[in-house]
This record gives sequence, structure tokens and C-alpha cells, in this order.
Amino acid sequence: MTNNNSIHQTAIVSGKAKIGKNVTIGQFTTIYDNVEIADNTIIEGYCELGVQNHLSNNEFLYIGPNSHIRSKSVFYEGSRFEEKLITGHRVTVREKTIVGKNLQIGTLSDIQGHCIIGDYVRMHSNVHIGQKSKIGNFIWIFPYVVLTNDPHPPSEVSQGVEVEDFAVISTMSVILPGIKVSKGCLIGANSLLSIQTEENMLYSGNPAKKVCVTSRIRLKDGTRKPAYPWTKHFHKGYPEEVIKDWEMLNHEGIL
Amino acid sequence: MTNNNSIHQTAIVSGKAKIGKNVTIGQFTTIYDNVEIADNTIIEGYCELGVQNHLSNNEFLYIGPNSHIRSKSVFYEGSRFEEKLITGHRVTVREKTIVGKNLQIGTLSDIQGHCIIGDYVRMHSNVHIGQKSKIGNFIWIFPYVVLTNDPHPPSEVSQGVEVEDFAVISTMSVILPGIKVSKGCLIGANSLLSIQTEENMLYSGNPAKKVCVTSRIRLKDGTRKPAYPWTKHFHKGYPEEVIKDWEMLNHEGIL
Amino acid sequence: MTNNNSIHQTAIVSGKAKIGKNVTIGQFTTIYDNVEIADNTIIEGYCELGVQNHLSNNEFLYIGPNSHIRSKSVFYEGSRFEEKLITGHRVTVREKTIVGKNLQIGTLSDIQGHCIIGDYVRMHSNVHIGQKSKIGNFIWIFPYVVLTNDPHPPSEVSQGVEVEDFAVISTMSVILPGIKVSKGCLIGANSLLSIQTEENMLYSGNPAKKVCVTSRIRLKDGTRKPAYPWTKHFHKGYPEEVIKDWEMLNHEGIL
Repeated sequence: MTNNNSIHQTAIVSGKAKIGKNVTIGQFTTIYDNVEIADNTIIEGYCELGVQNHLSNNEFLYIGPNSHIRSKSVFYEGSRFEEKLITGHRVTVREKTIVGKNLQIGTLSDIQGHCIIGDYVRMHSNVHIGQKSKIGNFIWIFPYVVLTNDPHPPSEVSQGVEVEDFAVISTMSVILPGIKVSKGCLIGANSLLSIQTEENMLYSGNPAKKVCVTSRIRLKDGTRKPAYPWTKHFHKGYPEEVIKDWEMLNHEGIL
Repeated sequence: MTNNNSIHQTAIVSGKAKIGKNVTIGQFTTIYDNVEIADNTIIEGYCELGVQNHLSNNEFLYIGPNSHIRSKSVFYEGSRFEEKLITGHRVTVREKTIVGKNLQIGTLSDIQGHCIIGDYVRMHSNVHIGQKSKIGNFIWIFPYVVLTNDPHPPSEVSQGVEVEDFAVISTMSVILPGIKVSKGCLIGANSLLSIQTEENMLYSGNPAKKVCVTSRIRLKDGTRKPAYPWTKHFHKGYPEEVIKDWEMLNHEGIL
Repeated sequence: MTNNNSIHQTAIVSGKAKIGKNVTIGQFTTIYDNVEIADNTIIEGYCELGVQNHLSNNEFLYIGPNSHIRSKSVFYEGSRFEEKLITGHRVTVREKTIVGKNLQIGTLSDIQGHCIIGDYVRMHSNVHIGQKSKIGNFIWIFPYVVLTNDPHPPSEVSQGVEVEDFAVISTMSVILPGIKVSKGCLIGANSLLSIQTEENMLYSGNPAKKVCVTSRIRLKDGTRKPAYPWTKHFHKGYPEEVIKDWEMLNHEGIL
């Protein structure tokens, strides 16, 4: 074959699926009909891509180029990921999840579908993203965080959470329905966020209260410089042009 | 074959297992010896049904008719589910779990066995049901809820949680050993429930305290009607006869 | 074969892997190159052992004798487990995890690698062990506990949690970076531990505060004896010589 693909002999790949060049598909993985995998992508073993469901309007699952989906993950049809999606193991993503480039999703995370996610978002392990969530760019969401959507469960009212650019949600926090986590906010670990937020503030506790501006938190690396905006000191894994944009924004005091 | 079954050629199905009519078994799924699957049931791929264990007294796993078990789930032998069990992906259910009809269990949920569950119970994703839990009918349990059982861990004392009919436990809440969540109660998100409850009350916080009667919570759908009892406005997915029963009970002021 | 092994015909086992005597490998399991499995060990179905990664320095994964890894688990190369490792289903363990004997890890637990774990540690389901954690001996960690490591996320500063011998961390608790859970401490359910601890004390709440010495907690088995140190009454699953050691230490008032 000239497409340079490596498809394990035990994988089950539908003839209707569109597979790009230089794609690796691991052992025991199933690729269903309604899937397009772009070039230079690795799908590890035991995955299912393009699981059918009646809510996807028969739209296909698109996995952008240079992506890497780790083993035992399940993706429904009807979602779209731009380039460089990177996942841990056993990730679940349901239909109508529209994602920018370089999303990283940790092991066991569960995106419930019907949500919009920007560029360079990092979700650590075991994150639960409720339906109708809107997530901006350059956001960090740590393990066991839950974004909810039902203000009085069970009901048919659905109020997704909104997370703005550069926000950070620490481990085990719950964001209540309809709450916006504003630009540059930090939510402390094990918090219950039930109030609206101001930009660049730290909220913490159960229920969470406003504590201070995030720039008052100091780096524990010996320098005692402000730890936020985190874009001033943490660049690992971002491309050069992104870091330059951040420098300009920080210089202008916009972040 | 006249039984109208569809068993994937890569599935491993014991000859001792009893498989009903019109049953679908997906790719790479294993059905062990001690299993009975009733008619019109779908078992998706990568599942294991009837995992052996020394605590099951060699009793079989029974999956009732019209059920749908999603991929990568693991069920031990020695449990019983009446009709219309519906699961997400990667569900785990251990031995001696006795369940009524139409249980829904979300992705990654883990039922530890040795518990009793009624009819029409809905567990969302990543719920942890400790051993010796007793769960009634028409109950909702949301993501990352934990029902515990050991009052001073580790010990050999086991005091399961009891959840009564129509109760709702919101996301990330922990119910301590021996606590009863009374009929129609609502437990707020990220709560730690360590006190006994009265019917139809809202408990919230860490530690949880009684807040008000649930009927004081208003619907956010524009009507401002009471959001509880939820059976007055939320009917999605329940059969007509159930909804009629609720209407009668609500009319008589019993709910 | 004289090695008495039982390798399922659908398993994919690298010829470079070292497999001991009397080893069982289940259906659809993959054993990669860089793996050594010692004698009398069971690896159930759908597992992956020895997943490659650039952080493992090409070191192999060693699984000690008399171990039992349950189905759908994923172990990276570059970790080491002494005898009698027992796991639940869908466990994930990354590189550079150095573990003593008889670790028990529950279903869905996730050890992020680069950490040290002693002997006879019990992790229940869905535990998250952050990188650089140091965990002693005879420790209990209950469901949904998170050990963190980044004091101001995201950053490149990493301060692992330390857990000393005989400590118990109850369900849904978060331990903040750089905190030491001292010998014999009990952390209450759904706590956020952000302060340093003294030995044999109960800490509880969000944020957690010191409540009392653990010996003031009484057994709910009718005896009203102290529930802690738990080694005085809970012996299930430990070998005779360990229990004798505890008795001596308790007699001398060391525990």
C-alpha cells in the first residue's frame, strides 16, 4: 500500500471509514462506518471510533491530523476534533462535541457531548464535562472536576457551564449549572462554585467564596514571583507562536 | 439459526450460557459459563459477563429481556437484573446485586455487589455503590456520588446506606455509613451527608445540614412552579403507567 | 510445554517478554516486549502490560510472583511490583512506580507514575495517585481520593504527597501538594487536607481541621473499644507474621 498505514490484523475497520495517510490502528480496535481519521494519527488498541447514536444526525466523527488516541477509548460519531488531539486511556466522548486544536484529555475523562471546546485545552484524568458546556482556549481542568448543567435535577432545563480563556479549575471541584468561570480565574481544589465570578480571581471552598486576585499567589520555585497569570512562567507543550502571543498580551497587561 | 441471534465471530460465548432469542453480542465480548441473557437484548463489544468469583455461591448472572449493555462493561456471576437494564460504557457490577426493572447505570459506574436496587433507578456516570446499599424505586444518583458502608475504616463492620423512593443525590456527594436518605429528599452537590434525614427535605453542605423543604425550590423554566416533587414535571423515559401512578400519588398529596 | 502456562490463543504475547512458570494470560490481552512476569501469576483478559513510553528509560515492567491483575488493566513499562500484587479491573499504572509486596489496587484506580509505594498498601476503587507521591506501609486509601502534587497549577513545581505507615484516607478526600499524612492519621470523608498533620490524629472537613486523637473513635461492633489503631481489631487479608508484628508494636505502645 502507498498510504503508509499500519492497521493491526485484529482491528475491525469499516470499508466506509475514511483513513488518511500514515495512520496507525492498534490491536482489537473497531472503526465504524461514519469516521474520518486524518493523516499521521495513532489510534491505539481496544478503541471504538464512530459509535452510532440517534442524536448525531448521522454526522461523522472527524479526528484531525497528528492526533494520538490512547487505548480503550470510545468516541461517538457526530463530533469533530481539529489537529493534535491527544488522549489518555479509556476516554469517552459522545456526539456533537466540537473541539479546536490540541485538546488533551486525560485517562477516564468523559465528555458528555453537545458542547464546544476551544484550542489548547488540557483536561487531566477523570474529568466530567456535562452537556452544553462551553469551554474557551488555554484552559486547565484537573482530575475529578465536574461541570454540571441541571439546576434542579432531574429536569429538562439544561444550563451549561461556561469556562473562559486561561481559567484553571483545580481537582475535585464542581461547577454548578449556568455558572461562568471568568477569564484567568482559579478555582481551588474540592470547591463547589455556585456564584458568578470576576476575572483573574481565586475562588475556593464549599461553597466557594472569592479569596483574592490570582496574582497574589506566589510561585513556590524560590523566586516568589506571581504564579498567575500562569502563562508568564509555564510554557511546556505549547508551540512557539502561542508563547509569543502570550508574551505580547502579558506585556500589554491584557492577561 | 431460528433464534435470530447475532453473535460476532470474535465473541467468546460459553456453550453453557443460556442465550435467549434476538440477542446481539458484540465484537471481542466474552460470555462465561454461568450466564442467562433473556430475549431482545444487546451486549456490545469488549464486555465480560459472568466473571467467576468465590462469593457468588455459583449462582448465575441473569440479564432480563430488552436490555442494552454498552461496551467494555464487566458483570460478575451471581447478580440478577429484571427487564430493560440500560448501561453506559465500562460499567462494573459485582456479585449479589439484585435489581428491579429498568435500571440505568452510567459510564464508569461501579456497583460493589451485595446490594438491593428497586425499579426505575437512574445512576449517572461514575457512581460508586458500596456493598450492602439498599436503593428503592425512582431514584436519581448523579456523577461521582459515593455510598459508603464502613463507619471506621478499615473494619469488618458494614453499615450500608439506604436510599428511599424518589430521592435525588446530586453530583460528588458522599453518604456516610448507615445513613438513610429519606423519601423525596434532595442532597445538594458536593455534600457530605452524616445525619439522618426527614422526607422531602433538601440537605446540603460539608457537613450537610437541613436547608428547607424541597418544594420551595422553584423551576428555572420560566414557570416558577415547585421543582419538587420532580415527578410533577419530569416524565422523560418513564412508561405511561408509571406517570399515571405518580399523578395519582401527587394528587393525593402522598408524594 | 513444561512451564505449565495457560496463554489464551487470542492473547498477543511478545517473544521478548519473560514469562515465568504457571502463568495464566487471558483473552485479548497484549504483553509488549519489555515485561517480566514472575511465577504463579494471573493476567486476566483485555489487559496491556509494558506499554512503551519515552520516560521509562527503556526499563522493563516487573510483576512479582503470585500476582493477579484483573481485566482491562494497563501497565506501562518501567515499573516494579514485588510479590502478590492484586488489582481490580481497568487499573492504570504509569512508568517508574516502585512498589513493595501485596499492593491491592481497586477498579479504575490510576497511579500516575514516578512514585514509591511500600508493603501491604490497599487502594480501593478509583483512587488517583499523583506523580512523586511517597506512600509507606499498611496504608488504606478509599474511593475517589486524590493525591495532588502541583501547588499552583499549571506549573513545573512538583511537590508530592507523603503518606506514612498505618494512615487511612477516607473516600473523596483531596490531599494538597507537599502535605504529609502522618503515621496512623485518619482523614475524614470528603476532606481537603491543606495543613501538616500530627501522628494518630483525625483530620476532617473542607478545609480539614484537627478533630481529636483517633483512639477516641469507638468501634460500632457493640464493644465500644477504640477503633484505632485499626491494627488492633482488623486483620483480614494480612499474613500471620504481619499480625504478630502489629501485636508486638501495639503492646509496646508504638502504634
